[in-house]
Amino acid sequence: MKRGAERVHIHDVALRDGLQIEPVFVPTADKLRLCNALSRTGLDKIEVTSFTSPKAIPALADAAELMQRIDRAPGVTYAALVPNTRGAERALACGVDEINLVMSASDSHSQANLRMSPERSLQQFEDVVALVHQTPGAQVAFNASLSTAFGCPFDGEVPMARVFGLIERIAALGIQRITLCDTTGMAHPAQVERLCSEVLARWPQISFTAHFHNTRGMGLANALVAWQAGIRRFDASLGGLGGCPFAPGASGNVSTEDLVHMFQAMGVDTGVDLDALLAVAAELPPLVGHALSGQVLQAGPSTRRHAVPGAIGQG
Amino acid sequence: MKRGAERVHIHDVALRDGLQIEPVFVPTADKLRLCNALSRTGLDKIEVTSFTSPKAIPALADAAELMQRIDRAPGVTYAALVPNTRGAERALACGVDEINLVMSASDSHSQANLRMSPERSLQQFEDVVALVHQTPGAQVAFNASLSTAFGCPFDGEVPMARVFGLIERIAALGIQRITLCDTTGMAHPAQVERLCSEVLARWPQISFTAHFHNTRGMGLANALVAWQAGIRRFDASLGGLGGCPFAPGASGNVSTEDLVHMFQAMGVDTGVDLDALLAVAAELPPLVGHALSGQVLQAGPSTRRHAVPGAIGQG
Repeated sequence: MKRGAERVHIHDVALRDGLQIEPVFVPTADKLRLCNALSRTGLDKIEVTSFTSPKAIPALADAAELMQRIDRAPGVTYAALVPNTRGAERALACGVDEINLVMSASDSHSQANLRMSPERSLQQFEDVVALVHQTPGAQVAFNASLSTAFGCPFDGEVPMARVFGLIERIAALGIQRITLCDTTGMAHPAQVERLCSEVLARWPQISFTAHFHNTRGMGLANALVAWQAGIRRFDASLGGLGGCPFAPGASGNVSTEDLVHMFQAMGVDTGVDLDALLAVAAELPPLVGHALSGQVLQAGPSTRRHAVPGAIGQG
Repeated sequence: MKRGAERVHIHDVALRDGLQIEPVFVPTADKLRLCNALSRTGLDKIEVTSFTSPKAIPALADAAELMQRIDRAPGVTYAALVPNTRGAERALACGVDEINLVMSASDSHSQANLRMSPERSLQQFEDVVALVHQTPGAQVAFNASLSTAFGCPFDGEVPMARVFGLIERIAALGIQRITLCDTTGMAHPAQVERLCSEVLARWPQISFTAHFHNTRGMGLANALVAWQAGIRRFDASLGGLGGCPFAPGASGNVSTEDLVHMFQAMGVDTGVDLDALLAVAAELPPLVGHALSGQVLQAGPSTRRHAVPGAIGQG
């Protein structure tokens, strides 16, 4: 491997990015239990919920209650998605550690997903930042997530120059954490290496996170290449919760436990207790009513030893 | 990426490694249609069947008939698994292009899967090679597949020194094609890079193939790293057919179309027509009676463009 094995930071987004597309409402008490259990696994960040309109995303309608009731573990960043200044006010009232602002790098995805242009998203980012700065006593970090940074399901290729331009605009707002999102699993390893190497070289002051989906099976390959390029922060979703709206049944987010399992097998420190993480992941299927795409949950870690059976065939 | 984009060679093993564990017998006519369709996709090699005892693997009991009836496309190598001299005689009678000899790198897997020691497997390899050399007019290549080369589900770690020792023994038999198999999906990228780099450096005269499983989601990550290390031949299974006997429901072989899709997206030439391959993969589910683990078959290639829908939520 090209890079040294310094610490990798894992952010779980299942409670927000995963649950937001589930047709069932997972009761607040269950979300609370999941969040508190995740807090004890060694994750660096948990995206707890979204302060979006409850009408837009009923599955996360309990954002404020959940955020207020979770146990805060020392060292864990509790983040929430915030779409606008109204959401920011609600998030501040709950004492979130980090506001995650989301925009699309491509026009059509921006319109389809956010009903606004990328330019308008940047304006909203600015408004939210201004609101927070004007709020006495507000102590919150900002992260900007750039959806479709590796390709758009409607527009196709998203030029790297466009991504760079948006990063520049975001950085100019004073936002120092940026997540590059492969929202619908279009990234491939050669592209990931190029984009990640470039952004790390151009903006050494920015803390970059990579957010991959496993829609076409390349989730861990892309994460690996991002790590080789020097990325040390990764979004992932417990159990692989979260889907691709264009391919029912296809894998969505990279599974947190599969990602941790890979890094752990490679001897790369994630700070995460894999067994504890798997135990929390095992609670998800009954809550959402379906199987999950995470592989390690099904197969067990590669360190698992099996008893020798009788002969089972050739090859 | 570290290495240049020279041609990658793809071998499909679905008809053998995939079908051998299916409880249904796929009719010979269907296998024939699949094989002939695969022959037209640009694959370099197709492992058509196994000349094992029909009692041991009833799903492949039609080995001779299938092998004799397939259309041979120019440039495609038609291989078959051969467990012993009896199997070699049957394979030679059908005119296979390549005899694939299989042994395990670990003692317990060897006993469980082949009911013999690795030492005894090497003796059988020698016997088969001798038989072929004594057969007038026999023109066949040999490949040796080394199961559990990256770890054993019973014995755990398989030391690299042991793998090297077995490669040396196999090479001494005059066998110049060797496949390193991650039989139960235990390999991780750091290990794959080390092992593949080492064997390529030590045995430049041997043509190495990598055979990965996606049991823990790392299939394409491992293939990518093997490619970075210089491996240019890959086994894969159409649709991801083939499972892990220790984890029902878990992914098995790396899916051929997912592997081709990744390389194609990266601009690496595989010689394979992805659309044609996907069309053949789509025929599999009704034949085996279950869904497949291949992701691109479900989600479509990343080049697919979707129509812009109404707003679908945040993030």
